[in-house]
Amino acid sequence: MVAEMKGKSKLCLQVEKDLQWLSQFGADTRKGVTRLLYSTEWYAAQEALKEKMTENQLTAYYDDVGNLYGRLEGIEQNQKTILVGSHVDTVVYGGKYDGAFGIIAGLIAVEHLRKTYGMPKRSIEVVSLCEEEGSRFPLTYWGSGHIVGLYSYENMSQEIKDRENITLKKAMEQYQFGKGHYKKPFRQDISHFIELHIEQGEQLEKKQLDIGIVSSIAGQKRFTVTVQGESNHAGTTPMTHRKDALAASCRFITSLLDMSKKYEEKLYMTVGKLDVSPNVPNVIPGKVSFSIDIRHGEDGVLDKVEHEIKVMLREIAINAGVTTEINRWMNEKPVQMDKNLSEISKNISEEKNISYMSMVSGAGHDSQVFGPKLPTCLLFVPSKNGISHSPKEYTSAEQLEKGIQVLIELLYKLAY
Amino acid sequence: MVAEMKGKSKLCLQVEKDLQWLSQFGADTRKGVTRLLYSTEWYAAQEALKEKMTENQLTAYYDDVGNLYGRLEGIEQNQKTILVGSHVDTVVYGGKYDGAFGIIAGLIAVEHLRKTYGMPKRSIEVVSLCEEEGSRFPLTYWGSGHIVGLYSYENMSQEIKDRENITLKKAMEQYQFGKGHYKKPFRQDISHFIELHIEQGEQLEKKQLDIGIVSSIAGQKRFTVTVQGESNHAGTTPMTHRKDALAASCRFITSLLDMSKKYEEKLYMTVGKLDVSPNVPNVIPGKVSFSIDIRHGEDGVLDKVEHEIKVMLREIAINAGVTTEINRWMNEKPVQMDKNLSEISKNISEEKNISYMSMVSGAGHDSQVFGPKLPTCLLFVPSKNGISHSPKEYTSAEQLEKGIQVLIELLYKLAY
Repeated sequence: MVAEMKGKSKLCLQVEKDLQWLSQFGADTRKGVTRLLYSTEWYAAQEALKEKMTENQLTAYYDDVGNLYGRLEGIEQNQKTILVGSHVDTVVYGGKYDGAFGIIAGLIAVEHLRKTYGMPKRSIEVVSLCEEEGSRFPLTYWGSGHIVGLYSYENMSQEIKDRENITLKKAMEQYQFGKGHYKKPFRQDISHFIELHIEQGEQLEKKQLDIGIVSSIAGQKRFTVTVQGESNHAGTTPMTHRKDALAASCRFITSLLDMSKKYEEKLYMTVGKLDVSPNVPNVIPGKVSFSIDIRHGEDGVLDKVEHEIKVMLREIAINAGVTTEINRWMNEKPVQMDKNLSEISKNISEEKNISYMSMVSGAGHDSQVFGPKLPTCLLFVPSKNGISHSPKEYTSAEQLEKGIQVLIELLYKLAY
Repeated sequence: MVAEMKGKSKLCLQVEKDLQWLSQFGADTRKGVTRLLYSTEWYAAQEALKEKMTENQLTAYYDDVGNLYGRLEGIEQNQKTILVGSHVDTVVYGGKYDGAFGIIAGLIAVEHLRKTYGMPKRSIEVVSLCEEEGSRFPLTYWGSGHIVGLYSYENMSQEIKDRENITLKKAMEQYQFGKGHYKKPFRQDISHFIELHIEQGEQLEKKQLDIGIVSSIAGQKRFTVTVQGESNHAGTTPMTHRKDALAASCRFITSLLDMSKKYEEKLYMTVGKLDVSPNVPNVIPGKVSFSIDIRHGEDGVLDKVEHEIKVMLREIAINAGVTTEINRWMNEKPVQMDKNLSEISKNISEEKNISYMSMVSGAGHDSQVFGPKLPTCLLFVPSKNGISHSPKEYTSAEQLEKGIQVLIELLYKLAY
């Protein structure tokens, strides 16, 4: 409110202007933004960012998968580099904050530091990661995955195709990537990765807090449960003789969600997909299959919950006279963010009177790729109504500014 | 076992032979029988039955919708006629017992009575009802419905079409029905309707009983429930902020089925169809719709259960933060079978040392069309594994014979 009354700060105005500017690449008539990996719009955005980096007196360069860097050289030669940024790609019909804000914030922060303090001791690079969302090709974290050496485009790019049957290789080569023209993406000279992102949830908004300091990115397990009963006549099969796959599934799902309550707000459990067969009103369901998605910041808890799910499933199956199968098809471990960087971020927030909370991220981010390799810090700003991946994404300029203030200070402490 | 050891009785052999004979009309190579209303196979079956009726010295005739009658004239002129039989049509890929057994049983019983006792006092007609299943056109009880005056083909046959767009009128006329060549189907000269049918359930088999004497055909209500919640991100929406339409639905269905237990085996409750939207593993379901099918022999109970369902739905909706809608789209009243005829059937069974139980039919039958108009008796014989509408339908000749024995005695008591 104070900011509003005084008029917007210079930083507020700049972040608003820059986000608006970047969102024009891939903008559609319905206020959505679509920048799919190696598309015309994506390339236009990277080229525009490259130009802006150069204007900001950064050394701008691509690597061979299309990650774009803007380097502010440090004075001390033997120090590793701090990487700050996020991803430039979007989902189809996305918004202008997800990913983009992390890049713009990095640019603004580094520009501010350079103008205020001159050259840092340690080099800083602002990175516009080429891909995180997985919206064009069936892969995610293509940009960050190459930097840490998880992926190797030389081995993968020929088999992977988009919906129009264009190979990843061909898509890369259209913009001269993947041909060895640029330096290899794998890097061993990075000391830290720092990412500023919108929350994509409502915790900060509901608690009216400015900053989320992510302690870990939740691990995730996904299962498919198949319940096999016996399809039968709804009018002639006595209730006690039924092997009703849907009745058993409903009982199981209800017990499961009740069980999840003991983990309070830390366990996220979702049954999002459920299919009934034969799925007609007057036939007892013979078969049901459904998904279970569980997420938690601690791996031990996820294993414990998996065990509880299996025990519960067996018990209900026996009582309902059905048979069950459970198949785990995703098992992503939680990734811890760097405690020291979190601590510094908290101190900065307190110094600046910026309200914050420590939180687990339920959504995935490039930070989870960097996290196991090097000290990584992921900071959230609020998302209005928790909306992301939609043109309705919104965070006020004042809220964005608070994120950038913490980022500036964090980079200052690490690099100067 | 005694019968097996002695060799099969004459009646056993005849019912087996006659059912096999009738099943040839519409037989396919996979042992199924398909006789859809006004099809070639259906007409061939009616014509063959007409010939058999004539051979049995019955006066055979059609009415104008294709019901076929074989009349054994009674001596007393002013008495109304006893009608005995069932339907000749089948579902697609059905078995040889459903419907067919009631016609064959009627023919065998009347033939036995005529040969043993000569002419009855009261006329008896064996009827091969033209349609009950609703497998070709979107209508059921087309045969019995015309006899009692529920239907009028003159008004309906032009709009109703089968899947190949053939009108009911055209289908009827192909075999010269519906043109006034035959007598009008509506009848006011019938005193009783008696139907012998396979149970289509497992109660008799599980209790090892010979005969089911149906006290009533269950009434039926069907509902569609729509639960509207809020679709959201499975990884970032806190559990306590969710409006999960599937979680609420599962809780409701579980409570509903638990509630149904207090009605013991008399209430049949089925949720057969359930659809989730958007139905993806990592999105909280925003909308679920599902069916509820309830059946009971007493109308008052169905109304009470409907009320309970609605109260329960409101409670769960409030607790789950979702909104619900419930729409009743079927409300068939239970139909009572004639108490006097049931009593006579019980006495006959006891005299003949045939085991029996009184039961409610959960499936629909032509008897439910006759029941509100005139004294009607529906008797069941066991169905192996409760299977019907399948080539796997099976009832042993010994079990069929016991049904026919009761039928013979019942007709004797009423007509002689």
